[in-house]
Amino acid sequence: MQDAHIKICEVGPRDGLQSVKSVMPTAHKLKWIRGLVSVGLTDIEIGSFVPASLFPQMADLPQLAESVRNIERLQPVALVPNQKGAERAVEAGLDKITIPVSVSEAHSLANVRKPRQEMVQEVARVLAWRNERAPRLRVEVGLSTAFGCSISGPVPEDDVIRLAVELVAIGADEVGLSDTAGLANPAQVRRLFTRLSAEIGAKAGAAHMHNTRGLGLANCLAAFDVGVRSFDSSQAGLGGCPFAPGASGNVVTEDLVFMFESMGVSTGVDLDGLIALRTVLQEGLPQETLYGMTPAAWPSPGYRAQHA
Amino acid sequence: MQDAHIKICEVGPRDGLQSVKSVMPTAHKLKWIRGLVSVGLTDIEIGSFVPASLFPQMADLPQLAESVRNIERLQPVALVPNQKGAERAVEAGLDKITIPVSVSEAHSLANVRKPRQEMVQEVARVLAWRNERAPRLRVEVGLSTAFGCSISGPVPEDDVIRLAVELVAIGADEVGLSDTAGLANPAQVRRLFTRLSAEIGAKAGAAHMHNTRGLGLANCLAAFDVGVRSFDSSQAGLGGCPFAPGASGNVVTEDLVFMFESMGVSTGVDLDGLIALRTVLQEGLPQETLYGMTPAAWPSPGYRAQHA
Repeated sequence: MQDAHIKICEVGPRDGLQSVKSVMPTAHKLKWIRGLVSVGLTDIEIGSFVPASLFPQMADLPQLAESVRNIERLQPVALVPNQKGAERAVEAGLDKITIPVSVSEAHSLANVRKPRQEMVQEVARVLAWRNERAPRLRVEVGLSTAFGCSISGPVPEDDVIRLAVELVAIGADEVGLSDTAGLANPAQVRRLFTRLSAEIGAKAGAAHMHNTRGLGLANCLAAFDVGVRSFDSSQAGLGGCPFAPGASGNVVTEDLVFMFESMGVSTGVDLDGLIALRTVLQEGLPQETLYGMTPAAWPSPGYRAQHA
Repeated sequence: MQDAHIKICEVGPRDGLQSVKSVMPTAHKLKWIRGLVSVGLTDIEIGSFVPASLFPQMADLPQLAESVRNIERLQPVALVPNQKGAERAVEAGLDKITIPVSVSEAHSLANVRKPRQEMVQEVARVLAWRNERAPRLRVEVGLSTAFGCSISGPVPEDDVIRLAVELVAIGADEVGLSDTAGLANPAQVRRLFTRLSAEIGAKAGAAHMHNTRGLGLANCLAAFDVGVRSFDSSQAGLGGCPFAPGASGNVVTEDLVFMFESMGVSTGVDLDGLIALRTVLQEGLPQETLYGMTPAAWPSPGYRAQHA
């Protein structure tokens, strides 16, 4: 364990900001992103290329993408739902995008108003365009509802794996699994990521877990146990959840870092600094509640000694 | 996994009620305990034999213990800190007690005002008395601060194991490990429970995990992975925590049941009924906040299908 390390992709500026009502000003997003990079979170989803009419929080992404270009070490990623988004990402100077493809047909129709197979065709078009026009662009796919759907219920594991294999066959660089509805359990996480890596090897991507039912960290642990080393999470659990106090959408980055570092698994993240950065985040979203258990119990006895 | 099952000991009526400011009336405790048994939580810590001047919430334990005797299937347990408590438990008709022994010297002094080794001697006295006067009494020891101490920091793993071996040698029926300060991490949980069961075999007791830093379920999963089948938890996460919203002391029983049942591990608990019982709990503690993520996201798509 002592030599193990993981990579965390901070999705707060995209998944988090997209889910809250408030709109964080561009300058403040930039301040937050700089802070994230300075504490070691260098892989960051900075926004989505989606219609500004639907997501005013994301309207400034072209400027933001431009502004972050001079932040050293930052690896910015944008979510795009279609080829137009991919083109905008490349125009904005990004070299990595992530495309969501729902395994559940019902979720696909609700989320992107397209059947699943049409989304696969959309990915194929993006890849063909990429190969011809933007060969340096890295295209990651996140399989939404891979662990269950809040509309249609259980999602067959064979469907998840078949879709991942198909996406790699058409050229996706990486395929990760997302627990969009927070329905995953650790046994299922182990089965699916084991099969995923058996089928697509090094192209198996991140575990994107939600904490809707409190199992976020347990599911990340389960994924780690079967070899996953890449995780998505969101500072302060931003990503919201229509439910009770303490509930959050995404796994809380602070708690994820605490868990892995306490286990002796390196994350590269300065947890002290990350917790201090919550002040900046709160200033940019004064109306929103910040989640996370570790920050409330910080400093933690023994944590520093362990990391001295 | 399909054949696996675990035993949950509900500690809410003891650990939970002892930690909140409100005092739940005896009749309401009885109603709640009946409800817990009816949804399948038959192992219950019903209270502590401690001075009523310090813990008014526990003052009614003799009557309560008397009243629960006619609840079918209930296995009531009481926490006792000393021989006097053990005598009171037997007088009240109980046949199982649990005694807390801190591994951390600093915590032992703060908690029971006795050095650790004096607590071991206290346990020895209880066991000698038990052997002579109450041979049917089962004596379980819970090792507090087994994963770290909020006063003195890291706790050496060798100390934990040495103490467990010593307690079994003097006749304890069971020795469990408690994460009193919520400092455990999954790697440590796996190491310690693996060593515990290697050293004391079937006398290795429950995992009593706290959720202070959000790792409660991940730590229970880690314990399960190395063979632990006995867990303590508290309905609605009662057990309080001086920290932020969403924070809780004990692992939330509802979330624990959801995790294991979703994995295909049987708990014997009717989760629908348990969640409905929160109304009874809230009526008895109108001032207190109830925690738990699963109840806020209930019903959960697919859960019933899986358990039909």
